[in-house]
Amino acid sequence: MRRWPYRLSALELRAAFTEALDPQLAAHHVVHTSGYQDAVHRLARELRCEPTETAILAYRNAADAAGHARRLLTSTATGMMLVDTGFAAPGTFTLAEQEQATGITQREIIRLETLAEGLIKEADDPREWFSAVRNALNAAIRGGAVGVKTICAYRATLKLQPVDTDALGVAFSAIRLRAERREHPRLSGSALCHALLFEAAQACRELDVPLQVHCGFGDPDEDLAETSPLGLRPLFIDPAYRGLRVALLHCYPYHREAAYLCSVFPDVYMDLSLTIPFAGLEGGRAMREALGLCPTSKLLYASDASRYPEVFFVAAAAHREALADALGELVEHRILDIGTAANAGRQVLAENARRVYNLKD
Amino acid sequence: MRRWPYRLSALELRAAFTEALDPQLAAHHVVHTSGYQDAVHRLARELRCEPTETAILAYRNAADAAGHARRLLTSTATGMMLVDTGFAAPGTFTLAEQEQATGITQREIIRLETLAEGLIKEADDPREWFSAVRNALNAAIRGGAVGVKTICAYRATLKLQPVDTDALGVAFSAIRLRAERREHPRLSGSALCHALLFEAAQACRELDVPLQVHCGFGDPDEDLAETSPLGLRPLFIDPAYRGLRVALLHCYPYHREAAYLCSVFPDVYMDLSLTIPFAGLEGGRAMREALGLCPTSKLLYASDASRYPEVFFVAAAAHREALADALGELVEHRILDIGTAANAGRQVLAENARRVYNLKD
Amino acid sequence: MRRWPYRLSALELRAAFTEALDPQLAAHHVVHTSGYQDAVHRLARELRCEPTETAILAYRNAADAAGHARRLLTSTATGMMLVDTGFAAPGTFTLAEQEQATGITQREIIRLETLAEGLIKEADDPREWFSAVRNALNAAIRGGAVGVKTICAYRATLKLQPVDTDALGVAFSAIRLRAERREHPRLSGSALCHALLFEAAQACRELDVPLQVHCGFGDPDEDLAETSPLGLRPLFIDPAYRGLRVALLHCYPYHREAAYLCSVFPDVYMDLSLTIPFAGLEGGRAMREALGLCPTSKLLYASDASRYPEVFFVAAAAHREALADALGELVEHRILDIGTAANAGRQVLAENARRVYNLKD
Repeated sequence: MRRWPYRLSALELRAAFTEALDPQLAAHHVVHTSGYQDAVHRLARELRCEPTETAILAYRNAADAAGHARRLLTSTATGMMLVDTGFAAPGTFTLAEQEQATGITQREIIRLETLAEGLIKEADDPREWFSAVRNALNAAIRGGAVGVKTICAYRATLKLQPVDTDALGVAFSAIRLRAERREHPRLSGSALCHALLFEAAQACRELDVPLQVHCGFGDPDEDLAETSPLGLRPLFIDPAYRGLRVALLHCYPYHREAAYLCSVFPDVYMDLSLTIPFAGLEGGRAMREALGLCPTSKLLYASDASRYPEVFFVAAAAHREALADALGELVEHRILDIGTAANAGRQVLAENARRVYNLKD
Repeated sequence: MRRWPYRLSALELRAAFTEALDPQLAAHHVVHTSGYQDAVHRLARELRCEPTETAILAYRNAADAAGHARRLLTSTATGMMLVDTGFAAPGTFTLAEQEQATGITQREIIRLETLAEGLIKEADDPREWFSAVRNALNAAIRGGAVGVKTICAYRATLKLQPVDTDALGVAFSAIRLRAERREHPRLSGSALCHALLFEAAQACRELDVPLQVHCGFGDPDEDLAETSPLGLRPLFIDPAYRGLRVALLHCYPYHREAAYLCSVFPDVYMDLSLTIPFAGLEGGRAMREALGLCPTSKLLYASDASRYPEVFFVAAAAHREALADALGELVEHRILDIGTAANAGRQVLAENARRVYNLKD
Repeated sequence: MRRWPYRLSALELRAAFTEALDPQLAAHHVVHTSGYQDAVHRLARELRCEPTETAILAYRNAADAAGHARRLLTSTATGMMLVDTGFAAPGTFTLAEQEQATGITQREIIRLETLAEGLIKEADDPREWFSAVRNALNAAIRGGAVGVKTICAYRATLKLQPVDTDALGVAFSAIRLRAERREHPRLSGSALCHALLFEAAQACRELDVPLQVHCGFGDPDEDLAETSPLGLRPLFIDPAYRGLRVALLHCYPYHREAAYLCSVFPDVYMDLSLTIPFAGLEGGRAMREALGLCPTSKLLYASDASRYPEVFFVAAAAHREALADALGELVEHRILDIGTAANAGRQVLAENARRVYNLKD
């Protein structure tokens, strides 16, 4: 999250509720989305102010920043945050600062591609590079990180292909040259990204931590057509990865496909994260659709929130509501008992994550 | 629309509510679709006759043709029609005739492939052809047309590929030969269709008119697997097309994907058009799903109706109802205020089109 | 079905409500699916026992096996079963035994790949093999079988490719060698499977029986990404198959695509079969979505049940409920009359199958 205190502008708040990179969306269109309208109304109800963007911003910019943030975060009843630290921008809390500022225990998730890019310069070939990546992952996990996240979907297709050693060598030489010239060695292309993902998958299996995979929609750097979790099939059927826990993040609009994977492969999990705060009632619909095939023991709560406490608050509230609606519908149709439904809620909101990430309080 | 007066048979009415080309569908199956049943019931309620196909046909065939057509069209409260004239068959009104017959202002949309096919004979190579296409588009827009429509999905995949100059040259020579032999030079294949689409996209950008792209379902000349709007990504990310307004037509069952594109790219718009009158309650479901990610400033009303006033009537009525239901659901869930919802309705039914197509009353 | 009497364990019952092959799913996750919870509650209501897995198993294991089975099967009001016999395991009823044990008329569906694998050894080349397959299909149909089923989706992609004669020859030689060595000649790969499917399609057309195609989700031997029914397009547009009736089985999550195919091609039919008992309320949602474009004259009831009467019971009850809900929703929205809806129910539950399979009572 961004270090408080700071004033929050309308454009900043809107930009936190869209995956668009082009500022025209925040300027002209975000206010016309059901996700943002939902956010404004939820915040206004919590703050007991007028349900307008102007009113909620005026309220928060006049309030004590730390107290306001605490109030919103406390209402989410979050017991622990798992934070992808590869996304940090200047002005962002360190994990330690964030734990102090929020009063919520923080655990690190390592962003694979960011970590791996930093290790290219010192490696002479892919083998050395992968060895350095494994050592770094090992060290990070020993240092307290609880999982690894890949954003391969932003850098290559998620339709995983077997490693082509020749292509890997060529691509590595090219990116190594960039690193030597002190240009940013941005990983991209299947040759590098898939080989790295397969290495990380084996490392995660050995380290007994889950591999998170960004699937489905995100910012337009990715081609949505290439981000179905079905492309990850090699991770699920190759005995080399047996026992690897994979958490499919976001998934929409491939959440039915993700739910299928959860239903047939023992160690596949999913969340809907940013679908919930960004898509209005469609988030709840995705939840109900996912709970068709996905066992409640496989669905994970996630906020995907960063930057502002406002997003955490909206994501948490909307997520609980969507979950309660989905489970309530199953109770009404005499599919779940009330007790089973309540237990399912606890699974999704806490127990599954504790088990999958080996979390201790 | 077909010039009235004419008698309308059951098979003709059914054929207007299906994308099937095989007459067996109209003969045996269309009456068993929710779309057609909905049409029959809506027409019967309007005409205050028995809700049967026989009754509504008897009523209309006994009525004054012009008066009957006016009655149905007037009830749609359509202020202006944007008409794809590349679809005209013998017996169809010209735009001027249609304006007179319906009392509704008409504006032309140019069908790209039809226009381009007519210019093959006079061109010696693709460059000359594209130049002629641009000149013709320019002239048509100056003459009052307000947009260009591509039916590339019927002629090639919508997964756009970079132009391969050699393949383009070969394909052009082959189709030119057909034109010289006075055979109909039907455009097809990616080499010709994608190169033409890219040219037209640049022309539309320069002429400041939207490019409409048929996406999703249509008649079985297209392979539905190849018609996702996600394949149009080059139009959205290549700086050469920056500022081009793209209207994704129909979209179903890729409407969630289309809504995503609208949510991240500033100049992408979508409609659901024929999904609404053809798919019963599924049309409304597609609307609610689209309004997950798609801003209400990006969704356009369209009837996709041609041939008969009956289809215009049904499409308009069903569309308004689906939109009212979708917005009403957002109001019930306290996501939209009543005023915002009413404004969203105006956006979808008129304002967005006025802005995107630069329409003046 | 498995020959009774036998005791049914919790793991066995759970395994019948999942497509997972890994026993961890039945051990840990199936109880957390809405499909299984629905099954437990439906069975408990029928048996008037506590709605727990323990109670329904205790009840059935204490009951007279034949009487219990009859009770559950009778409540499904099944008039005839069409049974894929290529799936039989040791301990399974023969069709004649099953007819006697259940009191329900049985008809055979031939599993194409199983039949074809048994004919490899005697053939010297693909042509001889296909000729033997045709003769065997012919004999089976004359012997009373009413259709042919392909599980190509488990052995190759469903994106059908034109036959490559060279690749077919090579693949046939390799599998023939396995057969000669008395290894099981398991068909796989596009070269063999697609060529076989095209042959079977022509045979079915000539024999006037439907070809069933497994589409959409199933056990993880298949790659869900390759199982969309849209890939079957050559069967629908090539004049060589004109008149062939194709039944798309399961379809989820490609049921909207399947419904589209039913709406434009005269001889395409679909069912949702295992989607209904396995996916909780998502089964009903898939039904409503399918009834958007799919005519009610094209949707077929199917249980996809095997092994235990419990699965037949749950599938039949859930299917009727989903169908009643979907049709009821259309009645509420004034799209269908009550009479039309009741007729649509009869079409889906019996008439369509009688017509498509030429069934006589």
